[in-house]
Order: sequence, then structure tokens, then C-alpha cells
Amino acid sequence: MKPTSMSSENTTITPTGSSSSTILQTMHPWTQHPLIVSAPMLNIAKPALAVSVSLAGGLGFLAAGYDVSSSLEDDMQEVVRLLNTSTSSTTIGVDGSSTMLPIGIGFLNWGADLSLSIFIIEKYQPCAVWFFGAETPHEDLVSWTVKTREVTRGRTKVYVQVGCVEEAVRVSENVKPDVLVVQGADAGGHGLKRSASVMSLVPEVVDAIHRMYSGGGDAPSTSVPPVLAAGGICDGRGVAAAMALGASGVAMGTRFLACHEANIARGYQAEILRATDGGISTVRSTVYDRVRGIVSWPERYDGRGVINRSYIDAEENALSPEENRRLYEEELKKGDQGWGPQGRLTTYAGTGVGLVRETLPAKLIVENVRREALEILQRLARRPGI
Amino acid sequence: MKPTSMSSENTTITPTGSSSSTILQTMHPWTQHPLIVSAPMLNIAKPALAVSVSLAGGLGFLAAGYDVSSSLEDDMQEVVRLLNTSTSSTTIGVDGSSTMLPIGIGFLNWGADLSLSIFIIEKYQPCAVWFFGAETPHEDLVSWTVKTREVTRGRTKVYVQVGCVEEAVRVSENVKPDVLVVQGADAGGHGLKRSASVMSLVPEVVDAIHRMYSGGGDAPSTSVPPVLAAGGICDGRGVAAAMALGASGVAMGTRFLACHEANIARGYQAEILRATDGGISTVRSTVYDRVRGIVSWPERYDGRGVINRSYIDAEENALSPEENRRLYEEELKKGDQGWGPQGRLTTYAGTGVGLVRETLPAKLIVENVRREALEILQRLARRPGI
Repeated sequence: MKPTSMSSENTTITPTGSSSSTILQTMHPWTQHPLIVSAPMLNIAKPALAVSVSLAGGLGFLAAGYDVSSSLEDDMQEVVRLLNTSTSSTTIGVDGSSTMLPIGIGFLNWGADLSLSIFIIEKYQPCAVWFFGAETPHEDLVSWTVKTREVTRGRTKVYVQVGCVEEAVRVSENVKPDVLVVQGADAGGHGLKRSASVMSLVPEVVDAIHRMYSGGGDAPSTSVPPVLAAGGICDGRGVAAAMALGASGVAMGTRFLACHEANIARGYQAEILRATDGGISTVRSTVYDRVRGIVSWPERYDGRGVINRSYIDAEENALSPEENRRLYEEELKKGDQGWGPQGRLTTYAGTGVGLVRETLPAKLIVENVRREALEILQRLARRPGI
Repeated sequence: MKPTSMSSENTTITPTGSSSSTILQTMHPWTQHPLIVSAPMLNIAKPALAVSVSLAGGLGFLAAGYDVSSSLEDDMQEVVRLLNTSTSSTTIGVDGSSTMLPIGIGFLNWGADLSLSIFIIEKYQPCAVWFFGAETPHEDLVSWTVKTREVTRGRTKVYVQVGCVEEAVRVSENVKPDVLVVQGADAGGHGLKRSASVMSLVPEVVDAIHRMYSGGGDAPSTSVPPVLAAGGICDGRGVAAAMALGASGVAMGTRFLACHEANIARGYQAEILRATDGGISTVRSTVYDRVRGIVSWPERYDGRGVINRSYIDAEENALSPEENRRLYEEELKKGDQGWGPQGRLTTYAGTGVGLVRETLPAKLIVENVRREALEILQRLARRPGI
């Protein structure tokens, strides 16, 4: 394995804007502001996607999910191989002098095995880990975080995903993450059954953790973790909005479903390009777990996906869970034809699915979204109206 | 009645920013950019609130609701009286030369009587009307809009509230409103049962109506109605975010519940100040209509309010609707003590309720939120990161 460097001396890309020393860019010196993160989407965010996003000055997360024994090590070796063969790798400082990998690993902590995960973290030294889905995050994630920091001497940054203010505060107090990923109700895939969108959630979380870190007084709260906004963000407008709300960057999932590097079935990707009006065409439900026999998510989570026959049959036709699951298994044989409103294969997607209109290389998505966001902010400052 | 002028010659306040000619400021010359609108909250947005917001360079809407026969004319006379006695009224150009009132009227079109409403619109010439809640907006609102424009020679601007992309497109095609109010799922009170937040909804609506007005080609779409974002916006961060998403202004409801001019019970207002973490503490439901015997909202709407006993009893304890309603009626006797998580009186509020921490004069809310939004945009353009 050829290691990659995190040292800023080797970084050839300077963050955009007059200030190059935002907290996130200090953590991950090859990244540009605002930080664009690709979310660790289970089965989809594999090495090709994670590496491409990081090579574009973002931060790509590999999805380890809840089963870290079957493919994580292979995936990490593939990450290393891709980084070593990439012609762009010099731009993120690959020079052999360090041991950090410029990609993160996302764990679903209700299922992932702690010691095996720590073994991989120690062996591969990812620049970040993303924890999500623990039964009680503010308790369960303490040992995950302590051990991660132990085996990487604190150099692997700990991202924790939260979905409400209380969780953000308790996680901040107990886990002391390096970054908070604040997920709103618009997000595709799994999240809290009930939550606000980032529109009100990000500002309220930012206020709450600033109050907490300043001890309730007026002291400067320099160690407040930066916030990434997630949920409903698919283009530069969403990124600029997230920054206005107080976020330092964003995590996008749905947007990256339609990129060349996503490990995704053609039928799924076609459905992402087809679906519009995500507030109406998608829904939060647990049915998409149930038809696939996934029953271990903690009670407070469900997942947002495009409405299809599985949902209609469960909610409107009172079809039995067993029969619905049987029909899902049957549908698998159809392959790409199994997706769509009349299909049964799951299209996890956020409400921003209607903003996703073309499949692009991940690199272009990262670059376009980042550039658009900065252009919007410049334009609004010059001439705020239309 | 002393009429008020709309002519820009009499406007002493110049919109902020280098461009003073945004579409909304041309429509309502006394307003400043970004336009801050107070939503027509039933029973709460009475003359004092509407007038105060307009006097602060925003646009206040009076709630006419679904019953325009009982109090609307009295309210309009009070609006006129307040405008005439206000020492600030010169700032919005009250000079006796025109006949427009610088406030709007909000109707719930599933219940409001068309001819009586048009009579009031003709008699008082409000600068704007806000239509919401029709069974099929793109059909039902055509006659409302045509007649309104007839009796005010097009000078009363027609705002139509929509909650999804399809509705925005169909309303734009058929009703041709002057302004689209795009309401996301975070909003308090009534809205679509299922919708995206403004985070993805506003950009997708903006794209869709631009495509529509440009005929699908690349022609400039100069007549595209400006968009106001509504739902989850309680401070300058939300306003700046809305602008980044493509909105020209915002409508706020929940924020104005905690202002001196709101016609609101102390118990309700105290609950707004108390509640936090609105994604968890509020919920969308029809129970708050049902306990009050309001059954005429079209099927696709429900309302977001703080979770209380009415909701818990209906959803978790399977209490009969009759008994739940009886307990609600009983609770009314408690007055201000009837609000709160253990109470039964309805606290409609959006997910941004946790951002509302003090009761202020409406004027200060408008001025603070507007200034904060512009400051945030200036700061982000100078130094985008934290």
C-alpha cells in the first residue's frame, strides 16, 4: 500500500476565497471550501465514488455499513490502488511521507463490529470516519470515538450524523466529535422518522452547540465542531443556502446517485433521473427495509424513498409483510425493470431528486456545485434581488 | 377612509442594496429587499400585526380566513384607522392621492365566499391578496384572480400559496399569479400533508416555472412570478438561505407569533417561547382541526403544531374523536393553562419554533431579520468559511 499525505505542504490546491484556513480545510488540506462530501450510501458509495470525490477537492466517504466483515478490507485495498494509480493524486498530496488516506469510512453503528472496524481504521488510517445509526449515539459512540482516536493518534476526524437538536447537544457533550453532520427530513435513505429540514435544524443546532461550548457565557467557542448540512441539497443553491444557515459544508447523497462512479443499478439510476417533485413522489417509511428483511435499525429511524408498489401495497392495500416481501424477492428477477413507481425495488432518494437531471462524473458534480455556491454568494452580495 | 398611496414618488425608504428595482419592490414600493411578509395566520394576523409589518418596510397580511362575513370589514376599517393614525405612515407614502392599502388580505379559498370577498377587495383596495387552500387551486383560483384584477384594475397583486412543484406549475399556467408563495414541510399551521422543505422545493419550483415561462427555450422569462419561501424561516439565516435557493423574499408565520402585535393568547405565546427542537416537538396532523370541529379543509392538507395531549390521545391512545373533542372543549375553560405538552389547546407552529426565543415588536422582527440576512450574504461573499 502506498500511503498518502495529509500535510498541507504537499497540497497544491488552495481553498477558494480570501480565507484559506477554515476549520475543515485545516483538517483536510486537499479540500476546498465549501466542503462537498459524498455520503456513505450503503452498497453505492464504493471506492470509485469516494476516491473521485476526494480527488476533486471534496471528501468522499466509503460506505462500510453494518457488515464490516464481508467487503470493507477489499474496498480499502481498492481505495489505495485507485489513489496510487490516479494521475490526479498529486493534487491531494500523495508523496509517501504519511499514512493517512484522503477518504472517509461511514459506519452504521447499530450493526458494525467495533473491534473489526477499529482494526481497519488502524490499518488504513482514513482521514475521517462517519458514525450513524447507533441505538443511543451519545453513549454508544463514545468508545468508537475514543478507540478511533487512539489508533490514529487523533488524526482520523470523527464525523457524527445527528437529526435533531437534542441529539446534537448530547453527542457534542459526550462524544466530542470533530464534525457534526446535521441531517434534515429531506434526506434520502435513513434518518430520523420525524425531523425538521436543515432550514430550521442547522441554525438551531449551531446556536445550541455554540451556547454549550461557550459554557453559556460569551466566551469565544473556538472548539465548536463545524457543521455539515445534509438533506435536500443537490446543487450550488442548496450549498449556498446551507452556508447561510451556518453550515461549513454539505453532505450530498441523492446527487451522487446519478454519477458515473456510483455503484448503482441502471434501473435505480434511471429512476433517480425520472422522478420529480420529491416532496410528493418520495416518502419516509420503514417498508423499504421490511421488504428486504432488514429489521435491525433502531426504532426511531426510517428511510425516504420514491413511492413504489411496496409502499402502496403496505400502506394502502394492507398487504401482509410476508407477501410484500415475497413480491419484492420476485421483483428482483426483473433486474433494472424492477424499479419505478410500478416496480418494487427500492429507490432511496431525497426530496431533491427532481433537481437531479443528468448523470455526470463525480468530479464535475463536486466542482460544479462548489463553484455555483460561491458564485451565488458573490452575486447575492453584489445585488441581492432578482 | 383615508386612502394610502402606492406611488414610489412618495416612498421615503429606498430598498437596500445596489439595485432598488427588484420586482417585489416595484410592486410594493414602500417595501425593502428582501421582502419580509407576515403570513395571514387565522385569528392571529389581525390589523395591528399586518399594519406594523408594512410600516417596517415589509408586507403584512391580514387573515380573512374562511369566514369573511363576520369580521373582515371591521378589520379593514381598523387597518385604515391604524394607518391614518400611525406616525410612521408617511414612510409608506400615505398622502391621500391613491386608493391602495399597503397591506394584503389572506383568504382560505375552500371556505371564503367569493362575492363578499371581492366586494371587500374592491372597497378597500388592498395591495395584495393571498390565496390558499382551494380544493383545486389551478381551477378554483382562476375566477378569484380574474375578479380581483377586474375590481382593482390589476393593482392588487395576487399571491398564491403552493406546496409542491406540480401545483406551482399548474397554478402558474392557469392562474398566472403575481407572486408564488412556496411553502415547505417545516411550516406551522396548514399545508400539504406531504411536501419537501423549501430546501429542495424552492429551487425545483424556480426551475420549473422558468422553463414554463420561457416556453422550454432559452428566451428570457421576464414575466416569471417572484417566489417567496415559507416554512422553517425564523431569522436572517433563513432569509439569506431562501435567497440563495432562488426566493426573492420570505413569508414568516411562527416568528410573528411571538410579537407584541399578534392577536394571540398568552398561553399560546408562552408555548412558542418554550418549545425547542421543532422537528421532534411538532408534528403534522389533522387532529388539531378535528378537536376543534373544523372538518372542511381539503383532504390533502393537515397542520403542523406542537405535540400535546390531543395528539397523543388520538395517535397513541386511540381515543375516540368525540371524546378527544369533548376534552378539548373542557380544556378551553383553563384558558392560558390549556396550552403546553400536557394541555390540549392547539399550538400551531413550524419546526423553527426553537429559533423563537423572545417576544419583540413586529417592526423589530422585520428590521432585524432583513438586516441579518443582508449582513450574512455580505459576510459569506467576503469570507465564505468559518
